[in-house]
Amino acid sequence: MEMELWYTEKQTPALGLSLKVKETLYYKRSAFQEIAVLDTVQCGRMLVLDGMVQTTVNDEFFYHEMIAHVPMRTHAAPRSVLVIGGGDGGVVREISRYPGVEKITLVEIDAGVVEAARLFLPEISCALDDARLEIIYRDGGEYIAAHQDAFDVVIVDSTEPVAIAEGLFGLPFYQGVFQSLKEGGVLVAQTESPLYNRDLLRASYRRISAVFPRAFLYLCPVPTYPSGLWSFTLATKLYSPLEPAGDYLPAGLRYYSPEMHRSAFALPPFVRELLELEPGLEHQKILSEK
Amino acid sequence: MEMELWYTEKQTPALGLSLKVKETLYYKRSAFQEIAVLDTVQCGRMLVLDGMVQTTVNDEFFYHEMIAHVPMRTHAAPRSVLVIGGGDGGVVREISRYPGVEKITLVEIDAGVVEAARLFLPEISCALDDARLEIIYRDGGEYIAAHQDAFDVVIVDSTEPVAIAEGLFGLPFYQGVFQSLKEGGVLVAQTESPLYNRDLLRASYRRISAVFPRAFLYLCPVPTYPSGLWSFTLATKLYSPLEPAGDYLPAGLRYYSPEMHRSAFALPPFVRELLELEPGLEHQKILSEK
Repeated sequence: MEMELWYTEKQTPALGLSLKVKETLYYKRSAFQEIAVLDTVQCGRMLVLDGMVQTTVNDEFFYHEMIAHVPMRTHAAPRSVLVIGGGDGGVVREISRYPGVEKITLVEIDAGVVEAARLFLPEISCALDDARLEIIYRDGGEYIAAHQDAFDVVIVDSTEPVAIAEGLFGLPFYQGVFQSLKEGGVLVAQTESPLYNRDLLRASYRRISAVFPRAFLYLCPVPTYPSGLWSFTLATKLYSPLEPAGDYLPAGLRYYSPEMHRSAFALPPFVRELLELEPGLEHQKILSEK
Repeated sequence: MEMELWYTEKQTPALGLSLKVKETLYYKRSAFQEIAVLDTVQCGRMLVLDGMVQTTVNDEFFYHEMIAHVPMRTHAAPRSVLVIGGGDGGVVREISRYPGVEKITLVEIDAGVVEAARLFLPEISCALDDARLEIIYRDGGEYIAAHQDAFDVVIVDSTEPVAIAEGLFGLPFYQGVFQSLKEGGVLVAQTESPLYNRDLLRASYRRISAVFPRAFLYLCPVPTYPSGLWSFTLATKLYSPLEPAGDYLPAGLRYYSPEMHRSAFALPPFVRELLELEPGLEHQKILSEK
């Protein structure tokens, strides 16, 4: 017999996801959080922050492709992109696939996350040496407040809205993002599970809708996140994600395609109800027109 | 301190889902399998067969609505519907919402499943007394082989392809289903996870494609199933699910809508690759035309 080591995340107080672990590759308590990289049998290497799975090598493509390519292709020609959070480098990797991008700014509060990803998640962190990238270790809210009319796309790849990430879900933050975006700017933020984080999702969607003229929710599966179904809120000053203006499509994607882009905005009745969207509409309404 | 009872399903040898349990409501070893109903904190009452979660009161709507309404609305006017497996009654409940249905046949091998559902899953089993329903306790493959030109829609709501359900994934079974269907007949079968049951999914899709002129895969989230993402294979003699012929839509659905119906057939590149579908097509090809 051999000892079996299992990692368990209580995704809710009454539901746990357990993964068999080969080895703990990295463990550190930074000034901000507990950071670990575990090598799992099922999902490959996995980044865990404060006991919550952030990403795994085997299923990260769902989340990273959908949080990046939906806003990137909604915009006609994004040149300057800001990523808040996302220290593992997964979003930066997807953004770096666009030859039209001139500048990527990654604002991550915790240098430890970047260190862990560089050391043990090369598949995810591989674009962190892109010449167009500047990494700034700072609070995302502070950074946003100090920059106006600077970005074409802002991607909020945050952890759960507890502790260090709480401010990234508030109205002042979204107002700051609006100011930081150029005329055709696009915001996307991860807004948690429509099953297990219903209040948070609704509150975030409403705050974003109150700040931006257009707001849209979209969904994609993320097997190792609570409920396996995840939401993103996209907001624009000008563009509609239902008619993407971008014509560049990176090759070799595994989840994203123009067809998946469109279908991700189809919302089941239980989600429409959660957002109090009018039933029977073909697409989500432009809220400011209501 | 109070004792905590947790149920864990090893969804794969290296990945487990755990649910906190209030109470075991039903436990029986039938001639075919182990049957249990557990009352869970997160998902409500839950049916477990041979240690595998079949359905939970809180998230059964994803699976039952999508396995039932997609084929029912693909057909112009289904009158006679056969359900194989599905002893919990969830599929029958969805079928019974159609006033145009004259006859529902439920062929379930294990009377114990129906007993457990009647006793402890009233929200799911509530249509098992529908006057149009006949329940037959028999092997689905045997039943199919004895009936020809009899059904408008056949729904295969089976367990995993092990032990008693193995025959429900084989070529002879699908040939029998083809014979049992009337001229405009529609088959749908649950075909497992595109992440964790890749070989089974591909094999089933190919077998069904070899028997029927048209075959289509579609996806939906099922939070308590392995990987949280599930596949169904739909095959028709005549209709296309991409242009549903049915005009009746039951009220009060939580996941299914005409928009979700369409978007469920959008397949991510990694699934298209698994099925060896040509890239870049707007929709799945009608295989017999290739």
